[in-house]
Amino acid sequence: MSGTSTFQSRPVALHQAEQRGAVSGIPIGKYLIDRLMQYGVGDVFGVPGDYVYQFYDLLDESPINVISCTREDTAGYAADAYARMKGIGAVCVTYCAGGLSVCNAIAEAYAEKSPVVLISGSPGVGERFNNPLLHHRVKDFDTQSEVFRRLCVADTVLTDSYTAFREIDRVLEAVERYRRPGYIELPRDMVAMVPEGSYTPSTTESRSDPDALREAVAEASRRISEARRPVIIAGVEIHRFGLQDKLVAIAEDAGIPITATMLGKSVVGEQHPLFAGIYEGAMGRDEVTTLVEQSDCVIILGAFMSDINLGIFTADLNPTRCIYATSEALRISHHHFHGVLFRDFVEGLVAARLHAMPQTLPPRQGFTEDRYEVRSEEPIRVRRLIARLNESLDASTVVVADVGDALYASSDLAIRRQTEFISPAYYSSMGFSVPAALGINVARPDLRPIVLVGDGAFQMTGTELSTALRLKFSPIVIVLDNQGYGSERIFHDGEHACNEIRPWQYAKLPELIGGGRGYEVHTEGDFDHALREARDDPKTLALIHVHLAENDCSRALQRLATKMASRV
Amino acid sequence: MSGTSTFQSRPVALHQAEQRGAVSGIPIGKYLIDRLMQYGVGDVFGVPGDYVYQFYDLLDESPINVISCTREDTAGYAADAYARMKGIGAVCVTYCAGGLSVCNAIAEAYAEKSPVVLISGSPGVGERFNNPLLHHRVKDFDTQSEVFRRLCVADTVLTDSYTAFREIDRVLEAVERYRRPGYIELPRDMVAMVPEGSYTPSTTESRSDPDALREAVAEASRRISEARRPVIIAGVEIHRFGLQDKLVAIAEDAGIPITATMLGKSVVGEQHPLFAGIYEGAMGRDEVTTLVEQSDCVIILGAFMSDINLGIFTADLNPTRCIYATSEALRISHHHFHGVLFRDFVEGLVAARLHAMPQTLPPRQGFTEDRYEVRSEEPIRVRRLIARLNESLDASTVVVADVGDALYASSDLAIRRQTEFISPAYYSSMGFSVPAALGINVARPDLRPIVLVGDGAFQMTGTELSTALRLKFSPIVIVLDNQGYGSERIFHDGEHACNEIRPWQYAKLPELIGGGRGYEVHTEGDFDHALREARDDPKTLALIHVHLAENDCSRALQRLATKMASRV
Repeated sequence: MSGTSTFQSRPVALHQAEQRGAVSGIPIGKYLIDRLMQYGVGDVFGVPGDYVYQFYDLLDESPINVISCTREDTAGYAADAYARMKGIGAVCVTYCAGGLSVCNAIAEAYAEKSPVVLISGSPGVGERFNNPLLHHRVKDFDTQSEVFRRLCVADTVLTDSYTAFREIDRVLEAVERYRRPGYIELPRDMVAMVPEGSYTPSTTESRSDPDALREAVAEASRRISEARRPVIIAGVEIHRFGLQDKLVAIAEDAGIPITATMLGKSVVGEQHPLFAGIYEGAMGRDEVTTLVEQSDCVIILGAFMSDINLGIFTADLNPTRCIYATSEALRISHHHFHGVLFRDFVEGLVAARLHAMPQTLPPRQGFTEDRYEVRSEEPIRVRRLIARLNESLDASTVVVADVGDALYASSDLAIRRQTEFISPAYYSSMGFSVPAALGINVARPDLRPIVLVGDGAFQMTGTELSTALRLKFSPIVIVLDNQGYGSERIFHDGEHACNEIRPWQYAKLPELIGGGRGYEVHTEGDFDHALREARDDPKTLALIHVHLAENDCSRALQRLATKMASRV
Repeated sequence: MSGTSTFQSRPVALHQAEQRGAVSGIPIGKYLIDRLMQYGVGDVFGVPGDYVYQFYDLLDESPINVISCTREDTAGYAADAYARMKGIGAVCVTYCAGGLSVCNAIAEAYAEKSPVVLISGSPGVGERFNNPLLHHRVKDFDTQSEVFRRLCVADTVLTDSYTAFREIDRVLEAVERYRRPGYIELPRDMVAMVPEGSYTPSTTESRSDPDALREAVAEASRRISEARRPVIIAGVEIHRFGLQDKLVAIAEDAGIPITATMLGKSVVGEQHPLFAGIYEGAMGRDEVTTLVEQSDCVIILGAFMSDINLGIFTADLNPTRCIYATSEALRISHHHFHGVLFRDFVEGLVAARLHAMPQTLPPRQGFTEDRYEVRSEEPIRVRRLIARLNESLDASTVVVADVGDALYASSDLAIRRQTEFISPAYYSSMGFSVPAALGINVARPDLRPIVLVGDGAFQMTGTELSTALRLKFSPIVIVLDNQGYGSERIFHDGEHACNEIRPWQYAKLPELIGGGRGYEVHTEGDFDHALREARDDPKTLALIHVHLAENDCSRALQRLATKMASRV
């Protein structure tokens, strides 16, 4: 296992393990399914194939629901989104031709801390003698596990029945602890194998160093109380570790304004009176940038300090004035505390009942704006589309933004509740959104996904809507057509033949996959009509092809482009 | 570099290197392009992205043609097919979100010996200080190169201008020598870097151990001459190393019948009088199986002895009677020769002017069959479709078969020339065929690809037809619709929900991508009409949706299913 933590660990019999007691007489595949269910996996995404049929048979007999996708990578993205909603997700594929097709989806889950369990079938242990050339094989039988060792927080190949249960527990624990993907390879002849003897589950529990924790909380509390303009930057780990309520408690106790990173967007309900907006350096609104960068105490909680999160390094944060806590590091000003758990630190701040000086918040945008009025004949622009969409969001919707201007534009959306916005804002893999909407639908059938996706990203994975349709889900997919990679063009305006993509008749996709309704949108009136009709018909998948006005882009991207022009 | 060869190598200045002489004053990116062109790369497939723009700019200025695809993995498959046609291919992508999306395509190229150069951009060396969280990053800056070390024959990250030219040469040499993929990562700030001083290209040349070679050829010649029924099994390496004519010379000298593996199908023109058919164990025709398995001297040249090539291990070959030569091994009966190059051994057999006893060949199939007569109202079956298609093949066509029954059925196709049939017959990655047709079109605009693809495989990558259309190519794509994974069902008839895929209106795809013509086919008459119209209109992309008769499958798959039923 390769974790990045320096937390103290010691083996303990957890409460859950004690309850489960000793295990004997069950096959390895069955044990894996039982443990997945105990961790909260109710659905598994994947594509079946010959090396994994044995395990699929067991899944079919279990209470776990199997979601077959059109491709392995889209199954991976769906499992990732499912994990972001439910706290854990799983994808199950065949060997190599299957497994090596989910590398990028698993890498994204690793980079953005989404706890996805990848289960891969493989040739049976008994088939491996004399090194035969079984199909799907690359270099040797370990090639696939070697690859995923680089992309997962823990990995195992269950070739030994004596250690199989322990190995399953080790990987699942690491996935839960680090909120990152784990790899479990199950040779097909081990699925039904029943280990001899009995196995008593044990596990390890991480604890903070109490002295380091006490000192860190005390120093942070003192700095916050003494500051004149403290501000919080909330990141995605607040969501991954379920600390949303704690974060709000800290802010409310002391009246500290909250901002969020793009990846962390919606970890705090954006209608909360203390919510000030998205902080993203030069991409963000000036008021938010000023609020954060002129603060004398920036409390960064669970945020990745990555380039896109920070507006491609246009952020200007002085570490001397920062308190920076994540699951991997805790730094106050220029000194580091080791061995302090993120959760313990956040809870310590709650318990400290912080005080801070009263502040005036900057004016907010989106949900505080005047009511949107349709200008029916006007060509549709991203900014206006977002304003119109803002009116349509409610507690039953979740917004999924793909990479590119779909993401940048979304920073102006007013997300009303926690976790109602999902995007690959750090790793930035195009094509995430449509399969992610499937994962959300499966995890939360009560929510209706609204997908914002550029034409280039849609061409990558848009046909996965086929699976949503098969399962009778009805996402609303808004394809922002800017004739190719619009946001890439902003950064790099060379005249590449390579930047070309063919304009599709996206509204025809429902005809190809045999269901749903397509809309062509050129004007604000068209968009208003399409969105209204789609919202009024919650059972029908809607594909809205938005022909954007030429050279249109979001305000965030315009701000960034201006700044980047002077840097690149 | 991780090769599997035991050949003797010594550094020599090759003729080409001598001609090129010392190199100085050119940027690293330019040197890479020059070397690619010297190896025969005329076109590069890929998807542009921010870490690779600098290199794309150089490509645009060069004579190399850039083919932008809708996805990275399909760009990889296209480059693989291009390499199979031209002897080398290249794919160029951005870091991680791009690179990690081609893992499976590169793995397939490795497994099936296709010489593909993977070029990936990456964060600049100057950007890597202090370990910043740049977007697209996974664990650390080496994650991607670590992954591709497991999937390539050689890999390099060009972080050092002093070694960059030598590293480029090393990787390209390995790609050419082993006919397997190589990985070149080019940090974006190294593209324009001009190394100091001058560099004299040198290279290594492999040579056979002359004594071992002499002994091996002598023994093989003796065994062949003394045999009563020698037979050749030709494999894909005959094609990869350009030895087709040598193979035919050996067979013609001694009147030895030639069979081929599925992966090697079409390495020999199948109308050659000595060609006896495809050998694939229980999947194959009985006459061919008997010919091979009752032979007293089986000469296996350049074939992978893999499970699918051998009819999922239903082949019954006695090693005592085999001569087995590939680029990786040379074995006669139960003894092994080390240090003998495949090419030298084959050329040695040609020079030996073999003699063998006269034999009678078994009757052949397909092209010797009676003329196909359309039964207009009959539901269309795979067997009859193949017979009809056989009539349509000529020197201007190339058949691409995807995994599944599309592949098995193809064994009855009569391929008229060398390399006119391409499929992922060993690694068996679904979704190869449509992007492969793009690669073929680019490599050989004089050929028209005819794609045979199942519905499941088509749903994975079929939208890549968009790029073919954009470039005005006109493949004929035949979607064999058996309502899901028909051939998987044969092997595993559990009632999986997971086996379900949604039936698409495949003939509507041309409307989605905005060009080409779609056909719906239910009967032999429909198919005849569609194929005739498509053949008569060489400028129009054709998508033929074939609704197969229920539970229909190829004869090869029926044969295999019968055999497998007694094994699995």
